[in-house]
Formats: sequence, C-alpha cells, structure tokens
Amino acid sequence: MKGSGWRETPGEGGHPVGRLEAFSDGVFSIAITLLVLEIVLPLHSERDLIGALLAQWPSYLAYVVSFFTIGWVWIAHGAITSHIVRVDGIFMRLNLMLLMAVAFLPFPTRLMADYLGQASPERVAVAVYGVVLFVIALLMDGLWRYAIRSSELLKDELTEDDLAIVTKKVTLSLGLFGGSILIGVFLPTVGVLCYLAVSTFLVVPFRTIWHAIIRRR
Amino acid sequence: MKGSGWRETPGEGGHPVGRLEAFSDGVFSIAITLLVLEIVLPLHSERDLIGALLAQWPSYLAYVVSFFTIGWVWIAHGAITSHIVRVDGIFMRLNLMLLMAVAFLPFPTRLMADYLGQASPERVAVAVYGVVLFVIALLMDGLWRYAIRSSELLKDELTEDDLAIVTKKVTLSLGLFGGSILIGVFLPTVGVLCYLAVSTFLVVPFRTIWHAIIRRR
Amino acid sequence: MKGSGWRETPGEGGHPVGRLEAFSDGVFSIAITLLVLEIVLPLHSERDLIGALLAQWPSYLAYVVSFFTIGWVWIAHGAITSHIVRVDGIFMRLNLMLLMAVAFLPFPTRLMADYLGQASPERVAVAVYGVVLFVIALLMDGLWRYAIRSSELLKDELTEDDLAIVTKKVTLSLGLFGGSILIGVFLPTVGVLCYLAVSTFLVVPFRTIWHAIIRRR
Amino acid sequence: MKGSGWRETPGEGGHPVGRLEAFSDGVFSIAITLLVLEIVLPLHSERDLIGALLAQWPSYLAYVVSFFTIGWVWIAHGAITSHIVRVDGIFMRLNLMLLMAVAFLPFPTRLMADYLGQASPERVAVAVYGVVLFVIALLMDGLWRYAIRSSELLKDELTEDDLAIVTKKVTLSLGLFGGSILIGVFLPTVGVLCYLAVSTFLVVPFRTIWHAIIRRR
Repeated sequence: MKGSGWRETPGEGGHPVGRLEAFSDGVFSIAITLLVLEIVLPLHSERDLIGALLAQWPSYLAYVVSFFTIGWVWIAHGAITSHIVRVDGIFMRLNLMLLMAVAFLPFPTRLMADYLGQASPERVAVAVYGVVLFVIALLMDGLWRYAIRSSELLKDELTEDDLAIVTKKVTLSLGLFGGSILIGVFLPTVGVLCYLAVSTFLVVPFRTIWHAIIRRR
Repeated sequence: MKGSGWRETPGEGGHPVGRLEAFSDGVFSIAITLLVLEIVLPLHSERDLIGALLAQWPSYLAYVVSFFTIGWVWIAHGAITSHIVRVDGIFMRLNLMLLMAVAFLPFPTRLMADYLGQASPERVAVAVYGVVLFVIALLMDGLWRYAIRSSELLKDELTEDDLAIVTKKVTLSLGLFGGSILIGVFLPTVGVLCYLAVSTFLVVPFRTIWHAIIRRR
Repeated sequence: MKGSGWRETPGEGGHPVGRLEAFSDGVFSIAITLLVLEIVLPLHSERDLIGALLAQWPSYLAYVVSFFTIGWVWIAHGAITSHIVRVDGIFMRLNLMLLMAVAFLPFPTRLMADYLGQASPERVAVAVYGVVLFVIALLMDGLWRYAIRSSELLKDELTEDDLAIVTKKVTLSLGLFGGSILIGVFLPTVGVLCYLAVSTFLVVPFRTIWHAIIRRR
Repeated sequence: MKGSGWRETPGEGGHPVGRLEAFSDGVFSIAITLLVLEIVLPLHSERDLIGALLAQWPSYLAYVVSFFTIGWVWIAHGAITSHIVRVDGIFMRLNLMLLMAVAFLPFPTRLMADYLGQASPERVAVAVYGVVLFVIALLMDGLWRYAIRSSELLKDELTEDDLAIVTKKVTLSLGLFGGSILIGVFLPTVGVLCYLAVSTFLVVPFRTIWHAIIRRR
C-alpha cells in the first residue's frame, strides 16, 4: 500500500484497518480504566467507614453506567470494523471524533457522581452526562452510516440482512439515550436509572442468554 | 468472518480471540500501572523523610498485593485464551465483567492503603478489598467454566488433563481468597498478609523454580 | 533478524517497524486520553452549575486543541511509518524524543486551561503551550527528513511525488504553528484560536470532504 | 501450542513471546506517559508565571531522567525479546518483577521533583530514586542472564559475539547507576546529574550518530 498515509480520497487504496483498531482499542481501554480515578476516597470517616462508602452510591452507579457504555462502544466498534476491510481519511476523522467523545466521558461521570442527590445541580449534571452519551451514540451512528455508504470500504460478502441488524441496533441506542435525557431533565434519578437500563440492555445480550439457557436444558 | 459483530449465539462463527486479548491486555496493563498513583507523597516531612516514607508501608504492601493479583489475572487470562480459538457474545460480556472488577481494584487498594493501621475502619477496608479480590477470582472461574462447557470455543487437541490443571488452579484461588477474607474480618493485618501470600503463591511458580534449581546442580 | 537489538548503525538490518508503531500508538492513545484529567470539576457551585460549567470554556478549548494535535500526530506518524519498512537506532531515538514531547503536552494544556482569561499570565501560558506544539511539529519534521534521507529505511516503490506530499504538509504545519506563537505573544486569545484553526486544518481533510460532497450529488 | 498456559517448566513448549511483548509495551508506554502527571501546576503565581515555571526545574529534570530510563528499558527489553523465540514461566515472572519496578518509577520521580533543592530530605529522595533505577537495571540484568542460560529460549542463529554485546551494555548500566547512587548520597545535585548522564548515555547512541555524521560528509 504505497504512500497512502496522506491521501484522503475514499475508494483508492485507503489504510488497512489494523492500526485504527489498535489505536481505538487503546483509547477505549484507557478511558474505561481511568473511570475508577473518579471515585473519591471517603476521607476522615474513621468512625463510620461503611456508612461513608455506602453514601458514595452515585459514584458506583456512574462508574457502572460509564463502564457499560464504553464497553458497548468497544463491542459495537468491533462490529463495525469487522465489516470493513479498509478505512479512508474521512472514516479516520469520524473515528477520531468518536474517540474524543469517549475519552471525554470520565469528566461528566465525575460531575454526575459529585452532584447526584443535590436538588438543583443534579438536573444539570444528569443532562450534561446524557448529552455526552447521546453524542457518542450519534457519532457511532455516523461512523456506521458512512461505512455502509462508501461501498469501497465494505467487505464483499456482506448481505443486506447483515447490514440491517447493525443499523437497527445503532439507531435504537440513539433513540433510547435521547429519551433518557428528556426523562432526566424532569426526573434526574429516574433518568440515571434509564441510562443504566439502556447501557445494560446494550451490553448484555439477554435474548442470547435466554436461548442458551433453553438450549442447554 | 462475515457480519459476526452482533451475533451473540455461541457456536456459529463467533469472534476471533485476537481483539478481545488486545483489549483485555490494555485494561490489565493500565490498571496495573495506575496502582502507583494511589501511593500518596508524604508532604511536609522535611525533617524526617525516611521515617515518613517508612510509615507508608501499607501503601507499598497494598501496591504489591494488587500488582501480583493483576499480574496473576493476566497470566491466568492468557492461559484461558490460549485454550480457546474463538469467543462468543456471552464470553465477551463475562470478560467485560472481569475487566470491570480488575479496573475497579485501584479504588479498594487506595482504601486499604489509607486505613490500614487504624483500629476500626481497618477491618472494613481489608474486607472490602478482599471481596473485590474474591469477585475477580469468581469471574475468572466463571469465564473458565463457560469456556470449557461450550466445546465450540475450545481447541480440538486439548486433553482432559490439560483442562483439569487449569480448573484446579482457578478453583484453588477462589478458596484461598475466600478464606483470607474471613481471617481479615477478625484479624485485619493477618488477613492482608494472607492476601499477600495468596497472590504471591499464584504468581510465583515455586515448584518450577525448585525443579529448575535441582536440575542445574 | 539476528541480534539487531543493540546495533544502531543504519542500513544493516535495523528493526522491523511493528513494535515501534505499537509503543508509539500506546503513548499517543494514553496521552490523548489523559487530557480529560486536566479538566477540573467545578466545586461548590451548587447554585449555578450551568454558569460554572460554561465559565470553564478555556478547559474545553484546550482539550479540543490538544486532542486534535495528538490526533494529527497519530495520523502523520502513521503516514511516516507506512512509508518505511525498518527503523534504525537513530530513528528510534528521534521517535522517543517525539513521544517525550507528545507525552508532555497534558502539562501545558492544564497550564493554558488555568490561566486563559487572566491578563498577564495568559500571555506566558499561551506561548509555552505554543512552543510545545512547535517542538512536536519540529520533531515530526526531523523524523520525516531523517527517514527520507536514509534510503535503506524507505520502501522501494515510492515515487518522488509521494515523498513531496508528506514533506509539504509537515513543513506547512511547522510554519503555521510558528506563526501562531508569534500572534499568541501579542494577542493571547487570538493565538489560541489560531492553534485551534491549525490543528483543525491539520486533522480535518476539508478538500476531501468537499470532493466527496460534490461527487455524491 | 496446546494447554501451555499453566506449565511453567522451561524448555518444553513455553509461550510465544508475542503477548508478553504486548503487555510489557503497554506497561512501559503507560508508565512513561503517566510521568507528566507528576509535574504540578504552579498555583497562585499570576504575578510571575515565568518565574514560577522556571522554579520547577527539578520536576522537568526528573521527568527527563525518568523518561529516558523507561525509554532505555523499552529499547533494551526489545533487544532481549528479539533474541528469544519463546518464554517460560520463570521468564514471565522475572518480567513481571521488572514491570513492577518500572511501574513504580513515577512515585520516586514525584518524590525527587518535590524535595530537590531542600537541604536534608533531598539526599533521601535522590537515594530512593537511585535505588529504584538500580533495581530496574538489576532486574533487566537478571532477565537477560536467565534468557541466555536457558538455551531453549534463544534463537538458534545467535553467535557468541551477539550475546556478548548485550551482556556488556546491561552490566555497564548496572555499574553506572550504582556509582551514581553513591555520589548522590554525598552530593545530591551531582548525583541527579549523573542519573541524567547515565540515562542519556544509555538512550542516545553517540557513537552511531558520530559515525553517521562522518559517513555523510
């Protein structure tokens, strides 16, 4: 693949997908591991450490939601890159935008962990957090739509059905996160539980587990 | 491997194990390297820096135990993935749970480093830390048991003996960590030394070193 | 490739480019993900969290500029390594210098985020930040020039045109960052906007996007 | 390579070197990138930011020495792994010890950055830092000596000369770091400059650069 590094025109050569995958996986795994730094140690709580640890439930909740979200992004990203054989300049930049949003997630995570349970700012923190989740889902959607439109990037053997499954799940996540933000603005605590439900739904394959249980009986 | 990204049914295709290994190794190597951030610098101890550094022994102890535990998880994870040829959706999610527990470890590490040596909260910190170690061993056990049950994931040439060795060591770690927590609740300092002993036992191959010494004489 | 680890003479063997790419990608992805830690949480702003979040615009601006710059370094680095087949000792050390400058970027980023908007120190912070950006571009330029001079490292099939495109873009970035620093010393806020413009220009392929839009009509 | 994950006996199978390299590179690249977090932002220095930044010279010095040291460890580690074809259990654990020492380096780096320039504690900080550097060099030496003793791990085509070059450089680094600590205990500032000189000497191939300059005339 000669001298393709600076060519950004899609369809003529393009980059092999390997290094983009490696760099993206690096950012995902670092962002997911940095989340723990947002959980602040309860200081000066010698007398009731258990109580102090339990009082930090918003931190753990935020940790789990963000971990599931990045975990889902990683799985979905793997699904997208497993469908394509090469990337062009625009795909690389769209991907960079996605990475920027994912790498930013620890900040709203900390924000939500800090302000959950405090009447007025709670609403703002939950909304800001939701917007970042929504932007991540939006960029994932954009990345996927760009990939299937530029047929040069896709593997030949893909059927319409294969593409439809991915499109459906990506679009669904967009609607679910969007709805959760609306709920979160009016009922912050319910909104956060919605985020938890959506990210759990995205990352845990309930239907498959159900099928596996049935089959093994 | 066409369009397998979103299929979660085991046995029909599945993902190659490579990207899961890379992502897991990323999380392990970051979590293990972040541990050092939990060691707080002794401030305002110009007069007796050596004393201040030595007084921080719980930090170093917690660092070594956590480092050995993650190191062992990395080695054991490599043992598991070296036995399998492909992963399915459930394996990927179980693996994600394991990563979530490992990535969480820096928090209880900091907790234990802070509260060790303080009568009452010490007990809580040591127990919390132990529970996280136990959950990690439990998830490793679950990951392994799932892998050997779904024969589609395993390499063909494996013998019963090969599987038995791994099963034995994973189960053993579960019992040892469980026992250490019980001890830690009653005798916190002894419990921590048990964690150190278990993680050292898991990571250092005494028998092999002994054999190697004998053979070279 | 026998025993080449310590040989540093170019042209006789040299290292394969793989491990250098992996290590560099690691540093780039970590540095780009650590940037978010520089964004400080607005504390004690329960009454007006939206206002407090908006008042932190220099942090977000610095985040975006640094993210784009490291993203560009990653793309450009990939362009360089895709042109070469092996690296020698000098290339490895030049690369290490580049990594040192990139890994240092979070510090001036924090500096700029903290002092932007404060009359006198703003000037210093913007200049220091610009100098680090300039040094990064300078080391990238050096790395590239070294690569094309030592013909043993380059792939055979490269034409003069391929080399000229890379050389032009690397040199251009040098001039643009240099000019922005000069502006930043006199008009700090304008200087930062120039950094934003340059990094956006480097990372976003406007011409390609334009062509793609036209073609799809 | 069937079921080799838990076998720790050298010479019968062993692991391929790939995943060990990837994990080690991960730890090296994270540790090297975390160093920047040790540089504290000068706070409340609106009046004289340049002065405050310059007063932080120990931080920059510690950053450069630690960066060069880890950079050298990375290059030397690559030299070692390029000589071997497989790793056994003992090699893996020795390697884990080396990683533990390298991952610990940010702590003494911060310590030295904080206490350099303060009469009495300076001596302690410089000595502690030197001991960690020495331990790193010692573990590298051990890793190398173990690799060349177990002939099963080495590549076949290696000559005695190839091995001698690596042995010489690793041993030399041990003596140089050891000597620097002795100097550092009596003359802390001189000791730090020795660390800088040793790490620069290890990472920069002066002889090669000199030869390259002569050859190109």
